[in-house]
Amino acid sequence: MSELGVRAEKLDAADELAGLRAQFVLDAVSGHAADAAGVYLDGNSLGALPAAVPGRVDDVVRRQWGELRIRSWDESGWWTAPERIGDLIAPLVGAAAGQIVVGDSTSVNVFKAVVGAVRLARLAALKGSGTTGTGVRDEIVVDATTFPTDGYIAESAARMTGCTLRPVTPAEVPGVLGDRTAAVLLNHVDYRTGRLHDLPSLTAAVHAAGAYVVWDLCHSAGALPVGLDEHGVDLAVGCTYKYLNGGPGAPAYLYVRRDLQDRFDSPLPGWTSHADPFGMRPDYEPAAGALRGRVGTPDILSMLALEAALEVWDGVPIESVRAKSLALTDFFLECVAEYVPSGRVECLTPVAHEERGSQVALRCEDAGDVMRRLIERGVVGDFRHPDVLRFGFTPLYVGFADVERAARVLAETLRVSGGGGG
Amino acid sequence: MSELGVRAEKLDAADELAGLRAQFVLDAVSGHAADAAGVYLDGNSLGALPAAVPGRVDDVVRRQWGELRIRSWDESGWWTAPERIGDLIAPLVGAAAGQIVVGDSTSVNVFKAVVGAVRLARLAALKGSGTTGTGVRDEIVVDATTFPTDGYIAESAARMTGCTLRPVTPAEVPGVLGDRTAAVLLNHVDYRTGRLHDLPSLTAAVHAAGAYVVWDLCHSAGALPVGLDEHGVDLAVGCTYKYLNGGPGAPAYLYVRRDLQDRFDSPLPGWTSHADPFGMRPDYEPAAGALRGRVGTPDILSMLALEAALEVWDGVPIESVRAKSLALTDFFLECVAEYVPSGRVECLTPVAHEERGSQVALRCEDAGDVMRRLIERGVVGDFRHPDVLRFGFTPLYVGFADVERAARVLAETLRVSGGGGG
Repeated sequence: MSELGVRAEKLDAADELAGLRAQFVLDAVSGHAADAAGVYLDGNSLGALPAAVPGRVDDVVRRQWGELRIRSWDESGWWTAPERIGDLIAPLVGAAAGQIVVGDSTSVNVFKAVVGAVRLARLAALKGSGTTGTGVRDEIVVDATTFPTDGYIAESAARMTGCTLRPVTPAEVPGVLGDRTAAVLLNHVDYRTGRLHDLPSLTAAVHAAGAYVVWDLCHSAGALPVGLDEHGVDLAVGCTYKYLNGGPGAPAYLYVRRDLQDRFDSPLPGWTSHADPFGMRPDYEPAAGALRGRVGTPDILSMLALEAALEVWDGVPIESVRAKSLALTDFFLECVAEYVPSGRVECLTPVAHEERGSQVALRCEDAGDVMRRLIERGVVGDFRHPDVLRFGFTPLYVGFADVERAARVLAETLRVSGGGGG
Repeated sequence: MSELGVRAEKLDAADELAGLRAQFVLDAVSGHAADAAGVYLDGNSLGALPAAVPGRVDDVVRRQWGELRIRSWDESGWWTAPERIGDLIAPLVGAAAGQIVVGDSTSVNVFKAVVGAVRLARLAALKGSGTTGTGVRDEIVVDATTFPTDGYIAESAARMTGCTLRPVTPAEVPGVLGDRTAAVLLNHVDYRTGRLHDLPSLTAAVHAAGAYVVWDLCHSAGALPVGLDEHGVDLAVGCTYKYLNGGPGAPAYLYVRRDLQDRFDSPLPGWTSHADPFGMRPDYEPAAGALRGRVGTPDILSMLALEAALEVWDGVPIESVRAKSLALTDFFLECVAEYVPSGRVECLTPVAHEERGSQVALRCEDAGDVMRRLIERGVVGDFRHPDVLRFGFTPLYVGFADVERAARVLAETLRVSGGGGG
């Protein structure tokens, strides 16, 4: 065994989170010969299946739907699932209870949050409570390097609120903020490079300009501490199918800071966010609290699968998860440096811990071909157009031996593949 | 056995759809003593569980997610599910393939459709192609008796497109249409009274005014022919958890008529509606066809449960379903007239077939209490505030003996209950 292989065994033996792997379905046969000893490094795209989920879903389908039917809205707690499950996510992102509701896709929640932020900014400007006075608040600043849906939805929000969209890099954000800024939409971790942005200081900069910030936590929630309450974040959204393992297309969530909730003015005021939803009243009156982020009838099957998936977090401190995440990505970078010929790949992920999420992105010209071969050999990451190999490290179920093996197979694959240097 | 009981047996024996009941889970124990012989008349709120669903969901969870994981986006057809399942719904609402996508809640789809309709109307006015010239198109007309979420969302759409909302009764709609009308949002069947509105003539009236119509099919799809293509409907939305039996909070759908698709301008342009979604391009370019009604990552568990649920429709003509639906509601009204003391309830549902959906709504002052007792005796309908008993008749699994029994138990319950006359 190589020296790094021995190191991996020692690291795994000392890993206090190692036991959590047994709570996931990871070693099933999946059609590829190599998968019996496969390494799943795509949990930043679709988290693995928690072992508690199949039985729960079966109960939801057969008993709650099949037998209790309509009575389950009360008796099985369907009606209150969005806020109940929101409260399960809350501690993972540093939020006290009562500020998160689950439902809809991330894109739809970005729309609610950005429009909501613009309206909050204008309300504050009207009341003269903005820290920089009463500007017109007609600009939405968005991270130009963001996952594209955020940019598309922010553009629609801008168009529908009479704002101009201003796409800049996160580094440029502080320099463009001013008394015209209404809302700023930022990604906590860049989906492509894995770069972690400085949430506390960017949030403070947005607030100093009298604007409101929306953070997209898709690539950070469940991998590292977010500290929404601590840092005074206004609004946040995130998906639940990456590091939270909620399942394919599982419902997303919306965080609205408690003291903003009574002014949060959703562009999607569906009946389930009404103060008296079964009153069937013609006039809309929003519910108190985070509930006003709800829209239509909650998607129960997916939502209760997510609830079961979140049970693995019971008693798991997010700080331990972060420590292991950094150890995993450090070790992967070390193995890649050792095994992969110099210059064959370029690392896009920052080396500094405070700038790194829980993934490593490697650039090489033949990335699409390389990832195909890697997957054939049971090492599953993903390819991002045009030239990025993306490897996600989910601390709940990825171990150090997995990391060493992935780097070794990657090196072998890169040697066989004919592509040019990175 | 009573004369009506004998009639019910004969009607069941002659029912060509009677065999479909075996494709649903209906006779399981559910906690109430009477349920072993229960009657489920709440399929207009939550359809019963199709027998094919539990096995399919289990395969989606354990194999597609648990074993194939990320590869299922291609290998298990996850990515194309919204349009593939849309094409399964299409024949049930009289639409050719390629015009429906499944996803999001009904409320979110109402927002897409109403904003889309306003934009279509303004585009047509700009081009001078409106049949009544180039009005400002700044009014949205909405059914004031509609399920409230439609009104709330239409109000938000009006606010965000610079329109005025004009709530009127469906009967008043033709009289208020004019060259200021941009969009009209109507329910095909009223959720409370069960009244069926005249889709062909109202659609024609909206078009004559140069405006665009959005039909909400929640209470008609799966119960009666809709004829979207035949009647030239512009846009339509609907849920899938009532007569389509897709499960609690199952994804809704959006219909955009083929010749309008290249001008349909969604307010929720999420990444999965992009022409090149994996190009991750900064600029939004909408996909061709119905796909531009997609938004975020599709909710796979719920969506594929719905796909399995739709299998029961294979070879079932919607015309036969409609014929049985009318026979069921006719028979229920006859049984109620025979069994229930005169004046104890008032029927809100129209007697004329062309004005009746697939439910019967009965008004009585003590409706809440009466429905509680009915459910205790295994006859499950629902209560709508303040005084309505609602009974839905799903032709796929409700039989005539069910109807006779429900009316008999209702009469007994009304005799026992102390409420005043209707």
